[in-house]
Amino acid sequence: MNIFGVSGSLRAASYNTALLRAALKVAPAGMDIDIYDGLREIPPYDHDLDGDEPPPAVVDLRRRIRAADGLLIATPEYNYGVPGVLKNAIDWASRPPATSPLKRKPIAVMGAAPGAFGSVRAQLSLRQSFLWTDSVLVGKPELMVFQAHLRFDGDGNLVDEQTRKLLAALLGALADLVTGH
Amino acid sequence: MNIFGVSGSLRAASYNTALLRAALKVAPAGMDIDIYDGLREIPPYDHDLDGDEPPPAVVDLRRRIRAADGLLIATPEYNYGVPGVLKNAIDWASRPPATSPLKRKPIAVMGAAPGAFGSVRAQLSLRQSFLWTDSVLVGKPELMVFQAHLRFDGDGNLVDEQTRKLLAALLGALADLVTGH
Amino acid sequence: MNIFGVSGSLRAASYNTALLRAALKVAPAGMDIDIYDGLREIPPYDHDLDGDEPPPAVVDLRRRIRAADGLLIATPEYNYGVPGVLKNAIDWASRPPATSPLKRKPIAVMGAAPGAFGSVRAQLSLRQSFLWTDSVLVGKPELMVFQAHLRFDGDGNLVDEQTRKLLAALLGALADLVTGH
Amino acid sequence: MNIFGVSGSLRAASYNTALLRAALKVAPAGMDIDIYDGLREIPPYDHDLDGDEPPPAVVDLRRRIRAADGLLIATPEYNYGVPGVLKNAIDWASRPPATSPLKRKPIAVMGAAPGAFGSVRAQLSLRQSFLWTDSVLVGKPELMVFQAHLRFDGDGNLVDEQTRKLLAALLGALADLVTGH
Repeated sequence: MNIFGVSGSLRAASYNTALLRAALKVAPAGMDIDIYDGLREIPPYDHDLDGDEPPPAVVDLRRRIRAADGLLIATPEYNYGVPGVLKNAIDWASRPPATSPLKRKPIAVMGAAPGAFGSVRAQLSLRQSFLWTDSVLVGKPELMVFQAHLRFDGDGNLVDEQTRKLLAALLGALADLVTGH
Repeated sequence: MNIFGVSGSLRAASYNTALLRAALKVAPAGMDIDIYDGLREIPPYDHDLDGDEPPPAVVDLRRRIRAADGLLIATPEYNYGVPGVLKNAIDWASRPPATSPLKRKPIAVMGAAPGAFGSVRAQLSLRQSFLWTDSVLVGKPELMVFQAHLRFDGDGNLVDEQTRKLLAALLGALADLVTGH
Repeated sequence: MNIFGVSGSLRAASYNTALLRAALKVAPAGMDIDIYDGLREIPPYDHDLDGDEPPPAVVDLRRRIRAADGLLIATPEYNYGVPGVLKNAIDWASRPPATSPLKRKPIAVMGAAPGAFGSVRAQLSLRQSFLWTDSVLVGKPELMVFQAHLRFDGDGNLVDEQTRKLLAALLGALADLVTGH
Repeated sequence: MNIFGVSGSLRAASYNTALLRAALKVAPAGMDIDIYDGLREIPPYDHDLDGDEPPPAVVDLRRRIRAADGLLIATPEYNYGVPGVLKNAIDWASRPPATSPLKRKPIAVMGAAPGAFGSVRAQLSLRQSFLWTDSVLVGKPELMVFQAHLRFDGDGNLVDEQTRKLLAALLGALADLVTGH
């Protein structure tokens, strides 16, 4: 099973990217997670460029989503919403609606933040977008890693056992969604 | 009164950019609207680049927001949400929270779309972001230009009288917010 | 297949109740829809009354949801949200979380309104609630019957063919969700 | 200054009702807070009953809102949303739109919950409703009393100093909104 992982944060020490890396370690047997490193290359969405020859970075993004059995998205919360940089990638990936690689794609959403409510509103907003794209989302468990600075060590390793268990449960639920169980 | 106008769409024939241009024509006496043309230049938000020397396009964006008496934002709706490209600019403008140019800034939100529900969800999502930034928003009237293709002519001129009146009322409400009436 | 139908409006001439009745006529073979008529009897949610002997109307509501293979909910939009009366019934039905009859229950959401954006925001809000209850929702098609006064005749009969087809498709998707296809 | 306080929870030991009572103690000089005790009496909203002689409990609610200089609402979060019982009262108070007592009424929203994210989503949903009613809301500070069981003693007294300060700041912001400062 091939999962495509996307972090909504570009910063080097991102808790969300660290959460994706932690997923590599607790993934169920047979699940490969390919972490996307091209987010910075995606140009701003422009309908006029979204024709027969879309930008190469977009072609690559769409191809990788299409090839994956499922998506795993780790999102921070910026201004009570989804980071623009992550939403911009979704805006490209969602086009055109009828043949979008997001259509019927199994997706698990999670998020981490240093604060108390981190990523709650961003995750709701993401789920709203994936309703439009007709994607298939994991419901429970939801994974909101608040006070993330207490759950990762200085090297970005997830050291909180409860979070590790929830993460494993989320990946298990994603695997079930992919295999139709 | 100096208003900074931002369209969330980059396409040349955008109804939202056309709506901003229509605002120039119905603005109350004394209101200048400066339409932003730098959205495409804003790099993807990266916390690591958001230090003492942020990218020049960001410096310019923040400066222009700070210099304005108010903001007028025209947003399309992508995937039941705010276009990533617009949200990305807000993510930059909102930083750092304590001195962000968005803080206490009067803002009017509007949107246009060819479909039946165009921009409704995007506008709600924008308002949610501007709650975080502690901006001051016009409540009523709300301006949701649905079935926009029926309200603009082929040259992007707003030809629907009801929409023109609503737009004028929205600009009036923004002016009142700026002057404290 | 036994579907439990709930209208969020109590008014006699409700478009949403009319939409539920229209569902009876376009339901696929083998699908029975039992329309709830007890919403008015549900008392205001009070945690102190939610113990071993909950109010009889609540016992009945929970029993009927549990007995159903799926739910079909027609919601109006009040104040950009779910009608309190409908939300109150969900608040009772959702308790206690571990054994709630809403858990893993297949649900289809729809809505009608005379205005242009009717029920869009209410439906999103309902979906948000059903994320918490761990229910399983039909994604597409979404059914938002705007300008409902043009689609029903004076006796509350659905006379718009496109809406009838969408309604039939929604019921088909609910049936697929129930049977696991 | 006369503030009308409403708790969205009916349970006797409600943290939200306790938060309202705490507001009595930290209110600025000259602010009286009248805590509503009639929520249980409000009937389920029915458009057919919303005519020339609405139910007496509704007449009383509308009268008290109209007489108040501002509203202070404490909301729990049920199923990722506003409690139905609170929303139902708003549904009655919002009618008819043109002369609703909620129109242009200054409102402060707050909430408490034992969990980690308590009331965040409910508060956003409330703000969305009060956009429709054209009410005027306090933006900052936002008051989300998470892990409420650690901040109140067994008698429902607010014993957390930081929360007390935030509550006082919220009341100060509401007073400023009322007086137009």
